[in-house]
Amino acid sequence: MPPGRFISLEGGEGAGKSTQLRRLAEVLRGRGLDVLETREPGGSEGAELIRRLLLEGPEERWTAEAEALLFAAARADHVARTIRPAVERGAWVLSDRFLDSSLAYQGGALGLGTEAIRALHRFGSRDYLPDRTLLLTLPAKETEQRLRFRDADGADRIGARDAAFHAGVAAAFEQLADEEPGRFRRVDASGSADDVTARVLAAIEDLL
Amino acid sequence: MPPGRFISLEGGEGAGKSTQLRRLAEVLRGRGLDVLETREPGGSEGAELIRRLLLEGPEERWTAEAEALLFAAARADHVARTIRPAVERGAWVLSDRFLDSSLAYQGGALGLGTEAIRALHRFGSRDYLPDRTLLLTLPAKETEQRLRFRDADGADRIGARDAAFHAGVAAAFEQLADEEPGRFRRVDASGSADDVTARVLAAIEDLL
Repeated sequence: MPPGRFISLEGGEGAGKSTQLRRLAEVLRGRGLDVLETREPGGSEGAELIRRLLLEGPEERWTAEAEALLFAAARADHVARTIRPAVERGAWVLSDRFLDSSLAYQGGALGLGTEAIRALHRFGSRDYLPDRTLLLTLPAKETEQRLRFRDADGADRIGARDAAFHAGVAAAFEQLADEEPGRFRRVDASGSADDVTARVLAAIEDLL
Repeated sequence: MPPGRFISLEGGEGAGKSTQLRRLAEVLRGRGLDVLETREPGGSEGAELIRRLLLEGPEERWTAEAEALLFAAARADHVARTIRPAVERGAWVLSDRFLDSSLAYQGGALGLGTEAIRALHRFGSRDYLPDRTLLLTLPAKETEQRLRFRDADGADRIGARDAAFHAGVAAAFEQLADEEPGRFRRVDASGSADDVTARVLAAIEDLL
């Protein structure tokens, strides 16, 4: 049996992560692979319960520290109950967001620092990391245009934060990709969905 | 205005913490103090939501690490939204359980280690600690007898664990009290409720 793989897709709101994850899953299934699509926060029974606490309610519901602890708890459950067992049976696990979102959002943009977030991940999930992380990048102007087409009522507690917050997130993702060139691949998310999928495939081809 | 105080009551199931907390609150109110009674997990709006995730569901719902992260998240919320604001306005806050329960249960009995639990508390609650912690102690045999009178269906996910687990918790509490003699006072919880309340009062008299 070929080894399972764990791939995470990262990037700000509107970069097209969910669409590309679905398309990548289809292509991999077409090649005969066992593929599991998942997402964070959530992806396991317990983590989905925590997801509701994180995304519902008013913006000021949680302190930054409580929010980071809840994300780490949800991730610990997601890794233990969903991701690790699937990879161990030989599946390809594709996750819409993972640790790097916490590093960029809570560690970077909310100012808790990436080392504190990494420490929570070491504790909760024994530092379990993706084999490859695809950072979908888009110029700020294009992101703004795409988000304008989303239903404003559809934004959750975190998506609804302001432009300066989201610029901070984008800068934090760039720094993470610089720091771990072995794990990260940047994928230009502009252009047609087909073009982006071709780039996504090229960025994981060596793992197939 | 006299300074506020934060007192936690600790001990295993059946030691009488809730009863003694209520009685202590009455006495302190009788002396004209502003008293806030609270408990863990819970004690604030967000922490009560996390409490439900922790105490409901099957025993194996959470990994030990996820459980510890959820307790730390609930405690961060409890400190930020309930305890610290009340102490700052001059109130006496009495909490049924606090950090030491996590140190004894998740750190000691579940084997995560107290240093890991302390690190979560430093991160989540900036190491906020009680002015005094009362450890209600009872011989194991007496605890057993008292618990036999509790409705078995009333036990939650954690209370329902076995005798060896609860013995581990008791040993961990003893060690914590040894390590921090300035903050801890042991209170013999055997005998009548009146006798125990008198001992509880003697153990905080110097803070009044």
